[in-house]
Amino acid sequence: MLLKEQAFNVKKASVKLAAASTELKNQALAQIAKALMDRKDEIIKANAEDLKRSEEENLAAPLLKRLKFDEAKIKDVVDGINSLIKLEDPVGKTVFCTELDQGLDLYKVTCPIGVIGVIFESRPDALVQISTLCLKSGNGVMLKGGSEARNTNRILADIIAEATDKAGIPTGWICLLETREDVNEMLKMDEYIDLIIPRGSNEFVRYIMDNSRIPVMGHADGICHCYIDEHARIDMAVKIVVDSKTQYVAVCNATETLLVHKDVAPKVLPEIKKALDEKEVALVGCPKTQEIIPVSPAAEEDWKTEYLDYKLSIKVVDDIHEAIDHINTYGSGHTDSIITDDKDNAALFMNLVDSGNVFWNCSTRFSDGFRYGFGAEVGISTSKIHSRGPVGLDGLLIYKYKVIGNGHIVDDYAKRVKTFKHIKKDADFPL
Amino acid sequence: MLLKEQAFNVKKASVKLAAASTELKNQALAQIAKALMDRKDEIIKANAEDLKRSEEENLAAPLLKRLKFDEAKIKDVVDGINSLIKLEDPVGKTVFCTELDQGLDLYKVTCPIGVIGVIFESRPDALVQISTLCLKSGNGVMLKGGSEARNTNRILADIIAEATDKAGIPTGWICLLETREDVNEMLKMDEYIDLIIPRGSNEFVRYIMDNSRIPVMGHADGICHCYIDEHARIDMAVKIVVDSKTQYVAVCNATETLLVHKDVAPKVLPEIKKALDEKEVALVGCPKTQEIIPVSPAAEEDWKTEYLDYKLSIKVVDDIHEAIDHINTYGSGHTDSIITDDKDNAALFMNLVDSGNVFWNCSTRFSDGFRYGFGAEVGISTSKIHSRGPVGLDGLLIYKYKVIGNGHIVDDYAKRVKTFKHIKKDADFPL
Repeated sequence: MLLKEQAFNVKKASVKLAAASTELKNQALAQIAKALMDRKDEIIKANAEDLKRSEEENLAAPLLKRLKFDEAKIKDVVDGINSLIKLEDPVGKTVFCTELDQGLDLYKVTCPIGVIGVIFESRPDALVQISTLCLKSGNGVMLKGGSEARNTNRILADIIAEATDKAGIPTGWICLLETREDVNEMLKMDEYIDLIIPRGSNEFVRYIMDNSRIPVMGHADGICHCYIDEHARIDMAVKIVVDSKTQYVAVCNATETLLVHKDVAPKVLPEIKKALDEKEVALVGCPKTQEIIPVSPAAEEDWKTEYLDYKLSIKVVDDIHEAIDHINTYGSGHTDSIITDDKDNAALFMNLVDSGNVFWNCSTRFSDGFRYGFGAEVGISTSKIHSRGPVGLDGLLIYKYKVIGNGHIVDDYAKRVKTFKHIKKDADFPL
Repeated sequence: MLLKEQAFNVKKASVKLAAASTELKNQALAQIAKALMDRKDEIIKANAEDLKRSEEENLAAPLLKRLKFDEAKIKDVVDGINSLIKLEDPVGKTVFCTELDQGLDLYKVTCPIGVIGVIFESRPDALVQISTLCLKSGNGVMLKGGSEARNTNRILADIIAEATDKAGIPTGWICLLETREDVNEMLKMDEYIDLIIPRGSNEFVRYIMDNSRIPVMGHADGICHCYIDEHARIDMAVKIVVDSKTQYVAVCNATETLLVHKDVAPKVLPEIKKALDEKEVALVGCPKTQEIIPVSPAAEEDWKTEYLDYKLSIKVVDDIHEAIDHINTYGSGHTDSIITDDKDNAALFMNLVDSGNVFWNCSTRFSDGFRYGFGAEVGISTSKIHSRGPVGLDGLLIYKYKVIGNGHIVDDYAKRVKTFKHIKKDADFPL
């Protein structure tokens, strides 16, 4: 089947899926979970082929690790599906109701976006997570995984499509793309696809944005900061910086730059160095940092770099305003944390730092859908419209305005025969 | 000043504006209203120059009418500003609060998007409406109006900038572009501009989408439908169709296509024709329509056309599913209304029609920010992410996740020393 036909079918199915009952969607999710367990041997066999081929092609060890999809990982995604079933259906919620006039009521009601195009990296678990999130939120989905996982992705997509067919979900709601050309074709299908979520490098996301008029919910670099304010407790600051930097270095919410108020720098920097030396973190710093602790000089480029490694850049600032300015200039709008006992400075920082996640006295590593209690996440958005920060089910929704009248016409209001009331009502959409 | 410097300044000012108090913003709005009245003679003089030049350049009469900005229109925009002052400040509202763990609280708090780029047509009132909506919602704004209104726009932007400067709003938050080249340069400034709102033709909006990686909140054609169901009351159907088509033909929420169930068509179509003949509406129809009433044949192109004129296309359908399918195929996702006394059919229509505004038993002309009670609107969005339908203050907002801890680190949760609680709390962000 041509990709365009497939996209047409996803769109068509998505319209019906939007009206699917909570019960039907949950039954389909349960079918998926069952089929994944029933057919785990097939999945593991397909994954073994992918692993073998990728090893022969000398795929890097961390990528091989992400590619591996064994019984434990299958159990993890099944657990995830079971949690998703328990979450409240986000579709069809009345956001507000306004009585426009007698017998004329406006309801703002949540609904699915429509068709989501997702391009993701090597982890096959992402395919299951994303497609089940789309199902629960009533969206059709077109998926493109990494080519290294092609066999695993193919069997997973087949299992999901079969299980949901059997459950009575409109056929064609999920579609797997396999080639790079498919992706380029997909970017042109603004007629059928409503939102693209690319998960990959900053350059990749920018490429997608430059080559599609479809809205993109993107994720740029995670250049996160900790700022140690003059009113910080030293022990807390050290603890938070060590966790933010080293708890898991290869992720977007790890801290890359430490900012320190000049008055507290002589006390706190030696302690930080001591703690980070133990974790073998390489330090680079501004001239003032170099006066206090022995570190390599930081270049302008360091403030813009997502190391994703055991490396930290350090800058001593004159005051909180310089810290905020630095973050808004060099940060990526992801996650930034202030360590302070001063409430006013915390408020200033959290108001003026223009990031999706702003923290007071805790580690930047907390910005994550699971930790936030969202259940699962399709990714973390550094976009500034629609969804920001960790994106769960809510990020896959939009709304409709539904108006119920009784023969009401605008002419009566234009001629002032009738006037609008605009009374807020606490009512759910009745149909 | 170079445009890039101006954009940098808008961005810088917008960060501070995001934290401006409700009182400050309302005082600034009051200053704008006062200055517009105080300097109305200057405005009218500048507008007279625009009108004179545009007449000489043979601008069409309806456009000249839109360009005119006299004392009555100044009074209208001042009234609008006074209503805006009375609206609740949408910034800083806590959407929800979750206790992640003891002493670790997550707050989702509304905040401005940042910098909005707006490109609008000839009406100078749009400049005042849009910039004051941006101010109230804490956003910086870059504006480009029609060149025919250049003198009027210049004096209005000057008055607004001076008044807000005097009130203490960060200088540079508003910036007026004057040339087409400026627009093209603006489209590349994704570093400074967070959202573009183009108000103009469908082609123009698509041009913007194709030439910018900045998110676009767009408005395609308004191809709106009325569907007369088999269970419709004839008199109500006629009344709603006449209003939807003729109450004001030149606007996006006017109906362009009428769909009629085959069982009711023989009764209702002659009545519709009689009523629309009185308003001199030209009718085109499908073969089945032509069997019932004398109308010109409709071509495939008619179902895709936004007439914005006294013209209506009519199609007889076999059932509600054909009607829904027609709307989802040819409609523009704007506004569609079903006329029926059958509750189940109304529910089906409102669930399956994939439009921002779906109506039951009322005119399509109701989809409008003022009629919905939103105060003012920046436009109507047919996008499917962020904002849909009439866009008021809410559409200019996004949110931040703010987390307050007390030295919390992720390592404790990774090592299961601590576990997440995820308890929903009814609390506002305390800072």
